[in-house]
Amino acid sequence: MTAPEGVKAARTVCLDDVRAAAEAALGTGDWDFVEGGSGTEAVLAANRAAFADVALVPRVLTGVAEADTGARMIRSDAAMPVAVAPMAYQRLVHEDGELATARAARSAGVPFVVSTLSSHRVEDIAATGATTWFQLYCLRDRGKNHELVARAEAAGCEALMVTVDVPLMGRRLRDVRNGFALPDHVRAANLDTGPGTEAHRRFGGASALAVHTSAAFAPGLSWRDLADLRGRTSLPLVVKGILDQRDARAAVDAGADAVVVSNHGGRQLDGAVPSVRALPAVAEAVSGDCEVLLDSGVRSGTDVLRALALGARGVLLGRPVLWGLAAGGEQGVDQVLALVRTELAQSMTLAGCADVGAVAGLRTERMWAHA
Amino acid sequence: MTAPEGVKAARTVCLDDVRAAAEAALGTGDWDFVEGGSGTEAVLAANRAAFADVALVPRVLTGVAEADTGARMIRSDAAMPVAVAPMAYQRLVHEDGELATARAARSAGVPFVVSTLSSHRVEDIAATGATTWFQLYCLRDRGKNHELVARAEAAGCEALMVTVDVPLMGRRLRDVRNGFALPDHVRAANLDTGPGTEAHRRFGGASALAVHTSAAFAPGLSWRDLADLRGRTSLPLVVKGILDQRDARAAVDAGADAVVVSNHGGRQLDGAVPSVRALPAVAEAVSGDCEVLLDSGVRSGTDVLRALALGARGVLLGRPVLWGLAAGGEQGVDQVLALVRTELAQSMTLAGCADVGAVAGLRTERMWAHA
Amino acid sequence: MTAPEGVKAARTVCLDDVRAAAEAALGTGDWDFVEGGSGTEAVLAANRAAFADVALVPRVLTGVAEADTGARMIRSDAAMPVAVAPMAYQRLVHEDGELATARAARSAGVPFVVSTLSSHRVEDIAATGATTWFQLYCLRDRGKNHELVARAEAAGCEALMVTVDVPLMGRRLRDVRNGFALPDHVRAANLDTGPGTEAHRRFGGASALAVHTSAAFAPGLSWRDLADLRGRTSLPLVVKGILDQRDARAAVDAGADAVVVSNHGGRQLDGAVPSVRALPAVAEAVSGDCEVLLDSGVRSGTDVLRALALGARGVLLGRPVLWGLAAGGEQGVDQVLALVRTELAQSMTLAGCADVGAVAGLRTERMWAHA
Amino acid sequence: MTAPEGVKAARTVCLDDVRAAAEAALGTGDWDFVEGGSGTEAVLAANRAAFADVALVPRVLTGVAEADTGARMIRSDAAMPVAVAPMAYQRLVHEDGELATARAARSAGVPFVVSTLSSHRVEDIAATGATTWFQLYCLRDRGKNHELVARAEAAGCEALMVTVDVPLMGRRLRDVRNGFALPDHVRAANLDTGPGTEAHRRFGGASALAVHTSAAFAPGLSWRDLADLRGRTSLPLVVKGILDQRDARAAVDAGADAVVVSNHGGRQLDGAVPSVRALPAVAEAVSGDCEVLLDSGVRSGTDVLRALALGARGVLLGRPVLWGLAAGGEQGVDQVLALVRTELAQSMTLAGCADVGAVAGLRTERMWAHA
Repeated sequence: MTAPEGVKAARTVCLDDVRAAAEAALGTGDWDFVEGGSGTEAVLAANRAAFADVALVPRVLTGVAEADTGARMIRSDAAMPVAVAPMAYQRLVHEDGELATARAARSAGVPFVVSTLSSHRVEDIAATGATTWFQLYCLRDRGKNHELVARAEAAGCEALMVTVDVPLMGRRLRDVRNGFALPDHVRAANLDTGPGTEAHRRFGGASALAVHTSAAFAPGLSWRDLADLRGRTSLPLVVKGILDQRDARAAVDAGADAVVVSNHGGRQLDGAVPSVRALPAVAEAVSGDCEVLLDSGVRSGTDVLRALALGARGVLLGRPVLWGLAAGGEQGVDQVLALVRTELAQSMTLAGCADVGAVAGLRTERMWAHA
Repeated sequence: MTAPEGVKAARTVCLDDVRAAAEAALGTGDWDFVEGGSGTEAVLAANRAAFADVALVPRVLTGVAEADTGARMIRSDAAMPVAVAPMAYQRLVHEDGELATARAARSAGVPFVVSTLSSHRVEDIAATGATTWFQLYCLRDRGKNHELVARAEAAGCEALMVTVDVPLMGRRLRDVRNGFALPDHVRAANLDTGPGTEAHRRFGGASALAVHTSAAFAPGLSWRDLADLRGRTSLPLVVKGILDQRDARAAVDAGADAVVVSNHGGRQLDGAVPSVRALPAVAEAVSGDCEVLLDSGVRSGTDVLRALALGARGVLLGRPVLWGLAAGGEQGVDQVLALVRTELAQSMTLAGCADVGAVAGLRTERMWAHA
Repeated sequence: MTAPEGVKAARTVCLDDVRAAAEAALGTGDWDFVEGGSGTEAVLAANRAAFADVALVPRVLTGVAEADTGARMIRSDAAMPVAVAPMAYQRLVHEDGELATARAARSAGVPFVVSTLSSHRVEDIAATGATTWFQLYCLRDRGKNHELVARAEAAGCEALMVTVDVPLMGRRLRDVRNGFALPDHVRAANLDTGPGTEAHRRFGGASALAVHTSAAFAPGLSWRDLADLRGRTSLPLVVKGILDQRDARAAVDAGADAVVVSNHGGRQLDGAVPSVRALPAVAEAVSGDCEVLLDSGVRSGTDVLRALALGARGVLLGRPVLWGLAAGGEQGVDQVLALVRTELAQSMTLAGCADVGAVAGLRTERMWAHA
Repeated sequence: MTAPEGVKAARTVCLDDVRAAAEAALGTGDWDFVEGGSGTEAVLAANRAAFADVALVPRVLTGVAEADTGARMIRSDAAMPVAVAPMAYQRLVHEDGELATARAARSAGVPFVVSTLSSHRVEDIAATGATTWFQLYCLRDRGKNHELVARAEAAGCEALMVTVDVPLMGRRLRDVRNGFALPDHVRAANLDTGPGTEAHRRFGGASALAVHTSAAFAPGLSWRDLADLRGRTSLPLVVKGILDQRDARAAVDAGADAVVVSNHGGRQLDGAVPSVRALPAVAEAVSGDCEVLLDSGVRSGTDVLRALALGARGVLLGRPVLWGLAAGGEQGVDQVLALVRTELAQSMTLAGCADVGAVAGLRTERMWAHA
């Protein structure tokens, strides 16, 4: 990995420009880790196709001069209905790692979700002043697990987001082919793991991260574990990785404040339904009893509009943020978040939506796919 | 931009031939301004795909020897159910600009819609003898706005077409990348702007036209503004830029004589529904209470037939007219309008339709898409 | 055009092989005349896509050792539910023209439809001993028209097939670009036209055949004309070129013995519905009151099976027969018809269908398209 | 055919890697025999597309740490719901032929289906210790037929799988073009045919195997033949090659213990419906009265999950097993079966399914196709 000098402003008019800069800035193994999906990577393509398939029906003459993108998600106010998705090991793509990303999130007024596997400590990230939510992978060592939650609370994280779609790590064939492993300077800072853990060793024909995931994370999570967590924290509880509406309903019953409709960016179950396709049924199932967020495939402000029109209250933005970080550090992320906000604000205005609440009233139409 | 010597007749058998000649005649920046769309330009492709998706079911033995393409739109008689769409700054692609286009429209017997941003004055354009309708972008300066309407009426324009889908100009990335700005000799003649206005200055990483639009046009238009306009003119009032059937119904209630189902040729909301896809619901919603026109994606006489079969009374033809103008001035536009009329007449005859009224009775079938 | 020495047997395992040989044998202008469609040629592609979209659900254990492909269409017995479609000017692709094609049809036991515009006289074609049906383009000169019908009857033609989808000839852009005209030795033998008629003159930017069609054929045909014909002949009357079920019903009411669901091989209305897509509704509308045949896009015995499963009693095979003729004269057509029969017989056997009647009971499923 | 040294472990992360190794290991004629389909080979593509079209909706927090892939199919226990499909002449791709494949099946704990046309004797294959089922092509010589069944029973085969979709061999154009014939050392060992039979002779423009099939197999099989077989053996009876739900029901009525929904890997009826598309209706029709297996297009453990979610109890895996055999003999097949099991186990875990029974409760969604 090389730390690039920043995204050239003149050429950056959409997120794909940032993507190209990021690909140029990273070595193959790191780029593949960021971009890759599991198995055939069909879900990566399907996530994008499912967004593109949603046509928006704009309204006119609604008196909107400039849309207000302000949002409130999980008791946090935000400048737009976007949060930075939890992503592991951000120092892999830029030496400043999560500190840069969190600072950019703070500047942009959006929440930053701290990954359990962040390469800076949650305390240091929270100290950037960003609104932070803590993403939890339940650890085999339950004591450590409770300690993590307590640390997140103490650091000022304002929500606990439990990832429920990683009973094991999806087979990401690029990483397997590359024998991907973390470099020494990148580590799971919250877990006090140093170089020399599984995540850093090279395995023949396997991803070091998959080995590490299997070693560190608790297998066999159940709704009981969620209920236990619910009882241990007063933070809003967010369940990330829901695609079946029955599970969304169960999350409500377990006391969740929000669910994230997600297929983990196409990195877990090969063949999984695109989250944008699963969203309407989930939104209908929870029927306002908890908030519904979405991730997996958001690549523009227009995609944010689509998600909101289909029932989401906000989205998590993943890879594009990493692209910005890889291409230009904190400034690169600034640029990504500014672009998304510009796109969203203009799209809302063009769709006649004064605020995010109005977006829910937009009609959408499937362009080509079966309903 | 170079003014070409005219489209070679022998090679011009369809509009794509004219398109190729236009691309050859124009510089990249101007061509991109004409052809480009907003954002991902997915709407450009979707507009075309949505037309191609409409299969026509022709009738036979109806006694039609040669179809009559004559139409009546918005109280104007026309040789075919086609009008030249309002398009700004036509001197950009040919030195004769709107005068050439309007003369060709007069020769072809079709209405010409004068853009607020035309590069000749509405009075000069109307003096060509073409049937003219005036397209209005509501100006921030309401006095000037009323003056514009009065000038259009005085010049003999026979309808007022208010564009309602430009609360701001869509982000047209080609123009942004090109730093597109108007050359000195091209100006918004109706607005008395000279070289040196925003539309002519080069901005780093922005389209000069977007800056100018933002500066000149009134933001936050509402149905009240439309009602106000309705009260100030006795001309037929046309609302251009409707995609949601609820808005179509509101336009009727506001006293509109016609609506134009349009996504602004893919230049405004990225991800907007193709107008041809939105058309049937709009036609059903207004149920004859006002006329329904359509634009965005019409590229042949067969497309006109499709639009009529789906409920439109006529269409506005945009880019193909500019192609003709770029490729051959007035004669180039003559050729475009003649081609469309030939294609329409032959298609109507082949579909067994004696006149445009009969086209409404044709069945259509979606080829591949979900209903 | 060169007369090739015959299709190489070893390489000819499917109709595409014959197509390639034909393309190699013909000059561009002639090939384009055979292969081309009207306008954008989208219908050519749609015809094929619509067939490919029909999945067949075979039956098993029905006791069929070898399917009987024998058929009865329009009171004629045939070795398979296939007739050679009416195609004009066959000497264009091979010096033996219709005589070769008809002899091959006789050998294969399938009817041959003599085109009004055949390049041999109907009497000479009928003298080959093939079962012949006569295809009629109604002429402006009604006297000549009645004479043609009388000649066809006298020559022994066993059905009269009136083409109703050519009020004018579709704009076939390849022919227009090529300025296509007939060579001197090819003429409409039934009409006593010699070299020097419109069909032979080269027009700047037009197809000579389109000019000729317009000059010779009666415009404005109506159901009255059909009724008149019905009264003038005792032959079975077939109406070719139906796509709307209402017209199919009208044909029954006018005394038609059969209709041919056809879009004229994609050569007439650009944007027309594929005939295979229109077939089920037509078959349901006539409900056994007349026979239903189909053409346009049949390229294999499996396609014949598809048509029968969707309600056709038989199909007309067009371009593939011309391919055979171009590639190898009579033997080339023998090969084409033998291939189709082999494919059909094997497909029927594999689908568990003892005879063509059983095919009607097969289920089909749309693979990708909207119903 | 060359016997390769084994699949390179480092590069084999999915079945496509094995496929590439197999293609490299085999000569064109043999590779075409393995890979080819009948006619246009559209069914090959459709089989794959139909699987890819099935999106899976995973469940979460079900308490599954590691899914149990164990299955029971047709009274046999298996390590996963997969059996090796019956495939003829396996010595064609590796000198060890069925003995290698069966040994790998035994190691993997999955049933091996012995083909009537296996290139080792059923007794020798059964002696490997694998769970074997015997696939029967009914022979013209009924005495030999009964003898075959008796031999299979005596050898210890645990089920009789009658193939009903080969009243004749589909026209596999690759084999026809290649004039494909068996080399001398490969023969139908169960039928005591030596080199010099039809299967070994080269025919001009025909597949030797098609000739042999026609000569050896009984034509015109009916439900009566099935009933006769039912009466002659106490083994579980499996009917392979069902696509129409009416036939599935008839199989139940004839006493079948299971049906295999199959289009014979795209090698029989060109245009046949993909088996995965036919599966739900068949599963519903038999409604638990017999087991439902599936083959044709399974290329990963995720595909197995899809089949189970749509109503299958298990699948037969065909070409991928031959790829493994071609690329690396017994070890190559070991690798294929291990990969599929890994993929299935991980997919089940990621979908929250503790065992194969739970998979039936997964929701699926069609991504693009009409229902």
